[in-house]
Formats: sequence, C-alpha cells, structure tokens
Amino acid sequence: MEKINEVIRNISGLDTVIMREAQSRLDNLTKPLGSLGRLEELAKQICGITAKENPQLKNKVIFTLASDHGVTDEGVSAYPKEVTAQMVYNFLRGGAGINVLAAHVGARVVVVDMGVCVDLEPDPRLVVKKINYGTKNMAKGAAMTREEAIKAIETGIEIFENEYRKGIDIVGIGEMGIGNTTAASAITFCFTKKPVEEITGRGAGLDDKGLKNKIDIIKKALSLNQPDSSDPIDVLAKVGGFEISGLAGIILAAASKKVPVVIDGFISGSAALVAYNLEPKVKDYMISAHCSVESGHKIILNYLGLKPLLDLDLRLGEGTGGALGIGLADAAIKILTQMATFKSANVSEKNK
Amino acid sequence: MEKINEVIRNISGLDTVIMREAQSRLDNLTKPLGSLGRLEELAKQICGITAKENPQLKNKVIFTLASDHGVTDEGVSAYPKEVTAQMVYNFLRGGAGINVLAAHVGARVVVVDMGVCVDLEPDPRLVVKKINYGTKNMAKGAAMTREEAIKAIETGIEIFENEYRKGIDIVGIGEMGIGNTTAASAITFCFTKKPVEEITGRGAGLDDKGLKNKIDIIKKALSLNQPDSSDPIDVLAKVGGFEISGLAGIILAAASKKVPVVIDGFISGSAALVAYNLEPKVKDYMISAHCSVESGHKIILNYLGLKPLLDLDLRLGEGTGGALGIGLADAAIKILTQMATFKSANVSEKNK
Repeated sequence: MEKINEVIRNISGLDTVIMREAQSRLDNLTKPLGSLGRLEELAKQICGITAKENPQLKNKVIFTLASDHGVTDEGVSAYPKEVTAQMVYNFLRGGAGINVLAAHVGARVVVVDMGVCVDLEPDPRLVVKKINYGTKNMAKGAAMTREEAIKAIETGIEIFENEYRKGIDIVGIGEMGIGNTTAASAITFCFTKKPVEEITGRGAGLDDKGLKNKIDIIKKALSLNQPDSSDPIDVLAKVGGFEISGLAGIILAAASKKVPVVIDGFISGSAALVAYNLEPKVKDYMISAHCSVESGHKIILNYLGLKPLLDLDLRLGEGTGGALGIGLADAAIKILTQMATFKSANVSEKNK
Repeated sequence: MEKINEVIRNISGLDTVIMREAQSRLDNLTKPLGSLGRLEELAKQICGITAKENPQLKNKVIFTLASDHGVTDEGVSAYPKEVTAQMVYNFLRGGAGINVLAAHVGARVVVVDMGVCVDLEPDPRLVVKKINYGTKNMAKGAAMTREEAIKAIETGIEIFENEYRKGIDIVGIGEMGIGNTTAASAITFCFTKKPVEEITGRGAGLDDKGLKNKIDIIKKALSLNQPDSSDPIDVLAKVGGFEISGLAGIILAAASKKVPVVIDGFISGSAALVAYNLEPKVKDYMISAHCSVESGHKIILNYLGLKPLLDLDLRLGEGTGGALGIGLADAAIKILTQMATFKSANVSEKNK
C-alpha cells in the first residue's frame, strides 16, 4: 500500500497559470474566438496537466491489460472464457481492433497479462504480471484477497513507470477479459449506488435471458460480499478484476507524472471510478474518449463529471475508443502549437 | 448546364452487393458483433460508394473554396470583409486551422479562389477560378446571375475532375467567405422552410444586436428575391455564394466518380442541400463529419437524414470538421481491411 500512497501524494492540481496562457494563445490564433470548441478545451487541459506551454504528444502509449474472471462460471458472458487468452495472442500478432486503431494514431500498445487463467506462451512483447490465474467467482465469495487487489494496483503503477522511462506523453487505457463487464457493473454500483439493472448491459452480446442472469449474479455477488464503498480496495478485492485494478494503478501513476490519461469505455471507466475514489484530484488528468453503448458507462461519466469526446456506439474495449481519443488530443495540441496568430498571419481581428 | 446534367446522369446508387460482403466480413472480425458501431457502418458505406471490397483511402483531398459576399455591406459579419483574402494567404502559408488538421489526417488542401473581391497575388498553390469579384448584395437584388450560378457549379465539377486525375479516394469540402453563413441560412430556409430565426446563428461571433440585424437582412433578401425552392439554381443565384455553388458541384462530381464526400459544417451543409435538391442520390455519398454550433446545421442534417460523426462544438468551417471526419473514415477502412478474422486468429466465436 506504501507505493500507492506515495503515488497519490505526488498528484497535484493542474497548472492554472499555464492554462491561462494557453487560453490567451488559443484566442489569438487565426480563427473566430472559441470556434474550435472542445479541441480548444482539450488543448488547454493538456497544457494544465503537463504544465507545459508547448506540450508535444510524441510518445503515445496504450496499455491493454488482460485478465480472467471466475464469475464466468455463472454464464455471464456471451463468449467462452478461453477467448481472453486467444485475444492476447491476437494483440501480440497485431490482428485486433486495438492494434489497428493504435497504429492509426501512432500509439504503441503494451499488452499485459494481469491474470489470464492459463500460462501464455512466452513472447518478448508480452508483459507478464500475473497476479493469479483469474479471479475467483464473486458469486461465491471475494474475487481476490485484499493483498492481491493492492498488488494489482501497484503492478499497474510499475507497468506505467517502466514505460515512462522509455517516454510517454499521453496514455490510453484498455482491457480484455471475458466477464469483465460484470465486475465493472458491480464496481459501478458500489460507487454510484444506481440500480444494478441500470448499470448492467449486454457486454459482448448477451440475449435477454443472459442479461437477466447477469443482473441476478451481480446482485448476488454484492449481497454476499458486501463491499465497503468507502474503501476502494475492498470494492476491488470483493467484486473487481486484476486488469481493472491495474488500470486504476496506471491512472494514478500517470497523474503523478503529469501525463494525460485517455479513458476508453465502461470497464476502463470503472477503473477511473476506483482511482477517483482513491484520490479525487486524478479526475482533472482524465480525458473521456467516448460514450460506450454499455448503459453503465454514461452513469460513470455523469458521476465523474466527464464529457466524452466521441459517441460512435462503440463497445469493444481494448482501448479502441481511447485510441481515437488520443488522435483528437493530438489534433488539439497541433492546433495550439502549429496555427498562425492574427498578428503573424496579418489577418484583421474582429470588428469592435 | 449540360456539364451539370451529364454529371448527374453518372450518379448511380450504392453497390449493395459489395455492402453485404463488407457486412459479412465485419461480422467475422475478432470483435463482438457490431461492437465498433458507427465505424463499421462507415466502412460499409464507403465500400458501397466505391464499389470496392477493399477500398483504400490513400489520396485524401480537402477543397477549401473562398469567396466574398456583397451582403457584408449590411453588417452581417463580426469580421471585416478583407479577412477572406487574408485567410486565403494564411491557407497558402499553412497557418490556418484547416492546414493543421488536414496535415494531421494526411490530406492535401486545394485552395480555390471562387470569387474573392480582390485580385490575389499569384501563387502556384492557388487555384484561381474567380466567377466574379464577390457576389452582389442580396438585400438589394440577386446575389449573382443564373449564368454565374451555373458556371460556379460547373467550376466546382472541373476543380474536382482536375484533382481526380491526380488521385482522390476521399474528399472533404470546406470554405472561407466572410458573410457566408448569411447565404447558408437563406439557402437553408429555401429548402427546409424552417423559420429564419431558427436557422440563423452568430457566424464568426455576432452579438445579440448583430444577430437580430442578420435575421432581418436574410428575411429582406428572401422577400425581395423570392427564390424558387423547386429550382436549386435559382436559389443559388438569388441568395447563394460562389463558394457554396462550387462545393455543390464538387459533391455532384465526387458522387459521379464514386468518391465519398465528407461534409463539414453549416456552409458545406448548405451546399449539400443544393446538391441533394439537384439529385437526391448524392445523399448516399455524403458523410457528415460533425454537428456545428450554428443552429441551422442541425436542421440541414435532419432534412438530409445524416447523422454527424462528431459533436465537438466546432464552428470554424474551412473543412476543419471534415478533416477530422476523414480521419475517422480512414480508421473505419483500416478496421475493415486490417483486422484479423476469428478464423485467421484462432479465436473462439460466440456461445450458441
């Protein structure tokens, strides 16, 4: 827990002086005042996060954390459990959605085994940080021990810090784990207290019967484990997942190093909820990439007060929406740093 | 008019066989069915437009057409008229928003003088197709002659065809013209019949008094000129602009060559209205990039039945939103053409 506390102590507020300077520069660029809307807000936020007048988003990294969930024994997913491991191989071979979209925006993907339930074939591109062979079935007891939850968050911090040494200017978070929308819904319940029915969706494609079962299982797990909402570690331990815990660690670590974090969809959002409940200041470091089709995601965004950049009916996860969000952040910073000013371009200003 | 009619005759419906094949391929990629939402729809639409199973979006072109508007004499814009020419120089030097965002998505910008009211300094990068030195003041008579309107549309067709020879896989349309939201509102009224108050916005930044004056001037111009809504050429001639007419020509020409057209904001949208009223089939070739802050834009999108990809409070024009839309189209096509299938990646499919 000491590592988590240390990281949290290093999270400060945004640099408001730099943000005012950024606003003034944006107002002098050759365009009507405020006419690039949310791209301008985004540029200003990134200046405040990085405390740099001219931030560069050269090193873009997407962390895709994979892990298994014991609760899949209860039939909560439309896909079989072995897909988690199969998709990790797909990530490593470059055939998944996240590979394509990360390459599209010039980001590198760091694939991490946080707790896939089988031993994966060794691969130099795979970061193995297995906390355990999947979580336990939360419908029958706690998903993990408290120690495992702490270790998973600290592992997220480590993963970030290792990559940070190679250079990171902006980070996207993503995940893969059959069954993990069930964990995300349970976590979302703990912090938002919205009805389980409202925060539970079809995940990768459940039918009506499957959705009803999933809701029942989440209710059962919550009732059995009684997670303590005032203690985010307890929530993770009882109804969370290793990848979600690791993502919460990455969010905290990024904020402590003044790196903007692009949040993907519902599951990444549940990790954002955990990080926020550990340290509310992290919110200012978050950029919400998109609003997922999963109904719980909108509830998370409202709770955190985040406005998503995109609304494209995505629900894939992996960090795919986050990749598109990184592309927009890149565009925003280029606007700030590459456009001419009225003065430099000799363009007349607004009529007085 | 013969050139316009010939282009219109060459516009066919989308290739539905190719679209079905694209859907089937999308359904076999390693992701839950439909989980990339609107990116999947976009990929499918582009397959249908291009009639290609594996469309490539290598050559991306944004046409930014500039022209002046006589109606600026009535004080309808927050910026002085000379800004049109000044911004053309800014485009040519690469300092404007469109230069930055086009470069971000790998598009080239073609800057065209359709009717700037001064002679611009010769520049090999500037396409000079001046129809006249700005339109006439629509509050005092027709903005242009019928012959000029036809010539401006045909010029748009020519501009597209010239660039098409160098290669175009996707096109974005944009504009610059102080006063052109006034023309766009008047055009929007003609086709949608919505109250002028609802389709008129603050443009580059009018205050309340300026907005009221703009609404009065639009009403006066409509009442004086009585444009015939069943005749899009008459609408352009009486209350349009040279750049808007040229953009309508580009849309028609792109559709005739099976090239997707990304529509930017309100003014580009008014050109889309004109093109649609000349030939409704063009609608299927249009991709709406974003929803502008200008209130009339939403009305145009509803009229055309187009759903914008982005909603980022943009209102700059120039093709800037279109550039971001081209970036998303590129992402969509990469998803379709670069992702692995369940079979090729050895990933288990959904539980039956």
